[in-house]
Amino acid sequence: MKNIKVFDCTIRDGGLVNNFYFTDEFVKGVYDTCVQAGIDYMEIGKNNSPTLMSEEEFGAWNFCKEEDIRRVIGENNTNLKIAVMSDIGRVVANELLPCEQSVVDMVRVATYIHQLDEAIQIVEDAHLKGYETTINLMAVAKVSQDELKEALERFSKTNVDVIYIADTFGSYYPQEIKALAQQYTKVAFNSGKKVGIHAHNNIQLAFANTIESSLHGVEFLDVTIAGLGRGAGNCAMELLIGYLNDKKYKLEPVIKFIEDHIVELEKELDWGYSIPYMITGQLTEHPRSAMKARDENDTKYTQFHQNLLNNL
Amino acid sequence: MKNIKVFDCTIRDGGLVNNFYFTDEFVKGVYDTCVQAGIDYMEIGKNNSPTLMSEEEFGAWNFCKEEDIRRVIGENNTNLKIAVMSDIGRVVANELLPCEQSVVDMVRVATYIHQLDEAIQIVEDAHLKGYETTINLMAVAKVSQDELKEALERFSKTNVDVIYIADTFGSYYPQEIKALAQQYTKVAFNSGKKVGIHAHNNIQLAFANTIESSLHGVEFLDVTIAGLGRGAGNCAMELLIGYLNDKKYKLEPVIKFIEDHIVELEKELDWGYSIPYMITGQLTEHPRSAMKARDENDTKYTQFHQNLLNNL
Repeated sequence: MKNIKVFDCTIRDGGLVNNFYFTDEFVKGVYDTCVQAGIDYMEIGKNNSPTLMSEEEFGAWNFCKEEDIRRVIGENNTNLKIAVMSDIGRVVANELLPCEQSVVDMVRVATYIHQLDEAIQIVEDAHLKGYETTINLMAVAKVSQDELKEALERFSKTNVDVIYIADTFGSYYPQEIKALAQQYTKVAFNSGKKVGIHAHNNIQLAFANTIESSLHGVEFLDVTIAGLGRGAGNCAMELLIGYLNDKKYKLEPVIKFIEDHIVELEKELDWGYSIPYMITGQLTEHPRSAMKARDENDTKYTQFHQNLLNNL
Repeated sequence: MKNIKVFDCTIRDGGLVNNFYFTDEFVKGVYDTCVQAGIDYMEIGKNNSPTLMSEEEFGAWNFCKEEDIRRVIGENNTNLKIAVMSDIGRVVANELLPCEQSVVDMVRVATYIHQLDEAIQIVEDAHLKGYETTINLMAVAKVSQDELKEALERFSKTNVDVIYIADTFGSYYPQEIKALAQQYTKVAFNSGKKVGIHAHNNIQLAFANTIESSLHGVEFLDVTIAGLGRGAGNCAMELLIGYLNDKKYKLEPVIKFIEDHIVELEKELDWGYSIPYMITGQLTEHPRSAMKARDENDTKYTQFHQNLLNNL
């Protein structure tokens, strides 16, 4: 397990719950926690372009302007690396500074299967500018084996550093994650790349799937503090640190952050296991219907289930 | 997976949250749900003796008198089998009716390692009276390999039908559950017995550990509706039914029960993942300190963690 990288996405995935309206104090708190806990990477938000998305509708961490990041974390003279996520169609290439002018170290590219050309373009641009890069193929549960094979082959010929298994629907069982991990690592290792996993907790398997993938060569493990993230949330940082049982990682700062910030946040924001997300997870459906049900506090679960079954 | 038995413990494990004060309507609701969902067994409570525990302090389902059970489920002319749990030192042998005079089909015996003589005595008495029996060795994470080997050997020589892996502290990782499952099934299969698992969700692995054990010969799988149970709760019935994907089991009645009863119950009772239970799980400690913190709504998690570390 010596090559494991624990990758924090608290602000980026948590931003999906509150449109990225975290206070500077909260973001600084996550950053300090990651530094103290020995976390390897922190994804501080998305680098979407203000020319393409509204700065009124979304908070600063949807854009990650250099000045906003620096205001909170300064020059980041620590071992923690900083990442941002690029969404296809929402970033503008020439807005990405050369890496040596930025405190950002890594650009992660989230892509659906029909967007690979654009995704690879963003990866290569970021790589040329000096960033570490990842490519996160979303919704892989709805991608055919042939498409997946071809996509992995394409990734292997790019300059991307890490290829991510992204369980967008939170629908995978550990045996399926094992098979995906074996498939991804086979291609990645042959081309000198790493593999990562980003798991969701719809059917309470985010942590288990993260463990399982790590037993089969997956090294970049995404977590969020207290599992903060859209809907059912993510693999919890505190659980993974407990499991790894490695002196490099400290649990205490994470528990402190939960005590100081998450206890309060839980009164405002809603995330974690719930029946609508469980149902979309079991049916391998995008959770958008679950998001709606939960926003509306709709507990007519039987009707919800029937509606989804009728639309399959 | 054709020999899987889904075993509901909603009332018995849920009773630890509210001292077994469930209404008849709620218990009947769980029963009807189990029948409609195709569940194999329902544990309706404990059969502790009213001569040894207070009927004022504990509700009817801590005692499971024949008349109370019959008032709710009648003669139970269904395929669902009814179980009760016996605690060492809290049952009186001659209070147990012969099986043919009772609607109860199975007696489960929960025991610590130092109580095996009494446990086996209860098993043999229940077996002689015509019941199916299980023996659930609790707190196995604190039992040495030598003691465990000896205990399993002893169980193999009794008339018990099922030997349970009980993850009392909610502390096991899937790899550990795999090893235990292999150890238990080896002894059990050689003596014509089955193996079961009762998992807790302290580190969000109850469902994953249940899946893992089922891949290694464990056939009796304990669940509760919505994971209802003390503290972090149990493996959720709705998750396991989704996973098994077997026409024998129906999800719809479970979702309906959650909609009709659990949504309300969640406003009164507190269970599910929380930091104190995660900490006791990670440290393989009994959750009694977590129970206290949670009862008192104490969110000083750092202090809680330190206190436990200091007492290790």
